[in-house]
Amino acid sequence: MPLVHIDLSAQRSPFQRRAIADGVHQALVDAIGIPADDRFQIVTPHDPEELIFDPNYLGVARRDVVYVQITLVQGRSRELKLDLYRRITDLLAEAGVRPEDVVITLVENALDNWSVGNGRAQLVELGTVPGARVEP
Amino acid sequence: MPLVHIDLSAQRSPFQRRAIADGVHQALVDAIGIPADDRFQIVTPHDPEELIFDPNYLGVARRDVVYVQITLVQGRSRELKLDLYRRITDLLAEAGVRPEDVVITLVENALDNWSVGNGRAQLVELGTVPGARVEP
Amino acid sequence: MPLVHIDLSAQRSPFQRRAIADGVHQALVDAIGIPADDRFQIVTPHDPEELIFDPNYLGVARRDVVYVQITLVQGRSRELKLDLYRRITDLLAEAGVRPEDVVITLVENALDNWSVGNGRAQLVELGTVPGARVEP
Repeated sequence: MPLVHIDLSAQRSPFQRRAIADGVHQALVDAIGIPADDRFQIVTPHDPEELIFDPNYLGVARRDVVYVQITLVQGRSRELKLDLYRRITDLLAEAGVRPEDVVITLVENALDNWSVGNGRAQLVELGTVPGARVEP
Repeated sequence: MPLVHIDLSAQRSPFQRRAIADGVHQALVDAIGIPADDRFQIVTPHDPEELIFDPNYLGVARRDVVYVQITLVQGRSRELKLDLYRRITDLLAEAGVRPEDVVITLVENALDNWSVGNGRAQLVELGTVPGARVEP
Repeated sequence: MPLVHIDLSAQRSPFQRRAIADGVHQALVDAIGIPADDRFQIVTPHDPEELIFDPNYLGVARRDVVYVQITLVQGRSRELKLDLYRRITDLLAEAGVRPEDVVITLVENALDNWSVGNGRAQLVELGTVPGARVEP
């Protein structure tokens, strides 16, 4: 169910782009417990001038940011979110991304805000999602 | 007022891309009652490897996903949302998209989160949006 | 901390695209008080047919829309948001964008929905963001 947007430099190789997408997905599985087959990702390569970031905001030395935006159902605890950030950053390091360059944003929505095919609202039918404490 | 992001394969023809955008818009008009001229859409074609999805999550046989993300004012009922998913999927089938391949996400925000030109907050001035039950 | 998505026509020059990104950032600094070095932006140029909009919805005569979507921590007052819309539109006019063509959407999230590098949740550590009234 999470929908993952990854915006990164087109100068990163197709091989690395795939490794980055794999890493973000594995981190969601590891840290939040989403099913391994619950994978929906949009990767958008950009010319370098299209990815703008400050090279030192809050003391983090960024050089080539990978933007990860994850839309997911609300209700994951702060602890789970912090685990997720660490796990994404660790796995992206294995894919050759400097930890300083991983910028992550979450956008939370409701259980009935999803249709993963056939025009049905499958999450409403399931009634819950992994790791969520509250039922919308 | 809804802002619609459509991410799809660049291998779909420009003609089909437009038909898909038209279908999503008509579904918003039909199911939620937005005005016919309340249309704001961003279509982004992708190389196939940039659109990642599981080919069978929750038993839906996906082959060539069209991602539809709709940002809209909160307050539409679950019933309206389910109507919207069905209507989008039906109209996209007419545009040649398999129902299994339509993945929809909603992101809800507040009435004062919109400016549709001239730096004004037109929805605040209107005071409401079609189909919404609550006034933020 | 705000993450800014700017989607605009590829027919706008690289020079103007940068001026637009600069203008949106300066408006966030001026109107909401974010730090000058708190800058994260993704610019996506599009072929004209990929940016769809009504040329007259709510009486605004649009010709070449620049879409600005800002993800930011919740809690800014309506007054601050209205100031932001006016300031963005004014500064984009200086960058050669007609005020009618500036369409802005805000998506608000929580303090613990951000990691700006190194896998940490820096906003949680800071405990607040400029201009926000409530502490999540």
